Amino acid sequence: MSHPFDAAIALRADGANRFHGHTHADYGNMVGPFGGVTAATLLHAACQHPARLGDPLALTVNFAGPVAEGAFEVHASPARTNRSTQHWRIELLQGNEVAATASAVFALRRPTRHDPQIDAPAVPEPAQVPQLDKPPRVRWFGRYEMRFVTGGMPRYQQQPASDDEPLHDTTSTLWVRDEPPRPLDFVALAALCDVFIPRIFVRRQRATPAGTVSITTYFHADAALLAVHGARPVLASARAVNFRDGFFDQSGSVWSHDRQLLASTHQIVYYKE
Amino acid sequence: MSHPFDAAIALRADGANRFHGHTHADYGNMVGPFGGVTAATLLHAACQHPARLGDPLALTVNFAGPVAEGAFEVHASPARTNRSTQHWRIELLQGNEVAATASAVFALRRPTRHDPQIDAPAVPEPAQVPQLDKPPRVRWFGRYEMRFVTGGMPRYQQQPASDDEPLHDTTSTLWVRDEPPRPLDFVALAALCDVFIPRIFVRRQRATPAGTVSITTYFHADAALLAVHGARPVLASARAVNFRDGFFDQSGSVWSHDRQLLASTHQIVYYKE
Repeated sequence: MSHPFDAAIALRADGANRFHGHTHADYGNMVGPFGGVTAATLLHAACQHPARLGDPLALTVNFAGPVAEGAFEVHASPARTNRSTQHWRIELLQGNEVAATASAVFALRRPTRHDPQIDAPAVPEPAQVPQLDKPPRVRWFGRYEMRFVTGGMPRYQQQPASDDEPLHDTTSTLWVRDEPPRPLDFVALAALCDVFIPRIFVRRQRATPAGTVSITTYFHADAALLAVHGARPVLASARAVNFRDGFFDQSGSVWSHDRQLLASTHQIVYYKE
Repeated sequence: MSHPFDAAIALRADGANRFHGHTHADYGNMVGPFGGVTAATLLHAACQHPARLGDPLALTVNFAGPVAEGAFEVHASPARTNRSTQHWRIELLQGNEVAATASAVFALRRPTRHDPQIDAPAVPEPAQVPQLDKPPRVRWFGRYEMRFVTGGMPRYQQQPASDDEPLHDTTSTLWVRDEPPRPLDFVALAALCDVFIPRIFVRRQRATPAGTVSITTYFHADAALLAVHGARPVLASARAVNFRDGFFDQSGSVWSHDRQLLASTHQIVYYKE
């Protein structure tokens, strides 16, 4: 039986650069699908394209409009293929409307020394961190096992702040894996990079309308490292950079069980106060 | 007399979504033009497009191949226009080859409280920081006044590290403005976000082949804030996140004279050890 994540990102090729997909109820968000699954689906188109060279290095997905439940098309074509890098243009369409645009860079990696410049957050091992109960209205939460060390959903905080005390640290750090467990690969990692709840929820300790406008992920892991990591939880951490005039940005990182940096991820998000 | 930056990013509209430009010798890099000017040129196409809505919010530029000295075309079209956001697909072509792809999000901003989550680096004012002499082989350096507080070109370091001590902090922090001075706007800011020298130069204290693969910038400033800032130097700081298998990523920020965050910027860079 296939994993619901694989069902959600499944694409049927139709000609050279066109694919057909369908939203999956298990990954529904408040409105439309979980953005991480949309990002993964767009990356998946390039991954399964016969012209593919190498593995994902960079992915930017722009959420241009709502994705309605139902069928969609993905158009993916290599804009340029070099000896060791390949640049993709990708779009998700429903009817004649573009719902998301994306670019991806794939690369053949050459071994060099590994020299990380940031440290993984110091946290207890997953078994020591309680698992998040699932908020029933958000379906995609049920497709991840989340163990928040800090910065979980406001409703799970002991002491929600009043409007006069909106000064919570914006960091969210959690252990997270697909539910049921699924071996890590590039598409799953692309989705995991969007697993953080909106920083404005954490900052203000309440939910408010918010949606990712654009997400960029840099992949540091190669396929071998992802394979070794397997189905274990990853350690994910993100914090806001700036809130200003209806948009905030955040930067985050995703680490393997043994604290190797798998991906850096950044996004800018629309919100209402 | 127009500023060389404006000459470098100048585009002549030719039909609905096509523009013609030309590389500018003043902004030459080791090979081809300074990537920041290429990024600015791509953003400029959307800025001057008659369908433009609002101001830049996010820009991703993927450097797909070398840009040869000479003429180029820019294709820019709105993929989707919403009530308050607009999504652009942009490409730079020479002949039939795509040399760069880009996406941009424009937005109409709504005032909300300003709530930055990072601090500007503590540095002396620009007049207290010596100005960088220009390396003669890199033309575009001459088009910026750079005052490095830390992490300048290795040749300017007092004590270059040997291969056995490659452990310099990767942070570069500098005051920087266009030379001659030019009032700050979104296109100039897009270029300034790429003004940092490659982190591998700083880490290893020597130059090595390196080139940006993809850069993403989030604009926090609105046009009014940029206008108030004017032609003063901005405070720019960047540090590496991870070096692994021939690529590193960096994150940076650009601040106004009075320490308002103008932009967050991230990039992933190819390098040889």
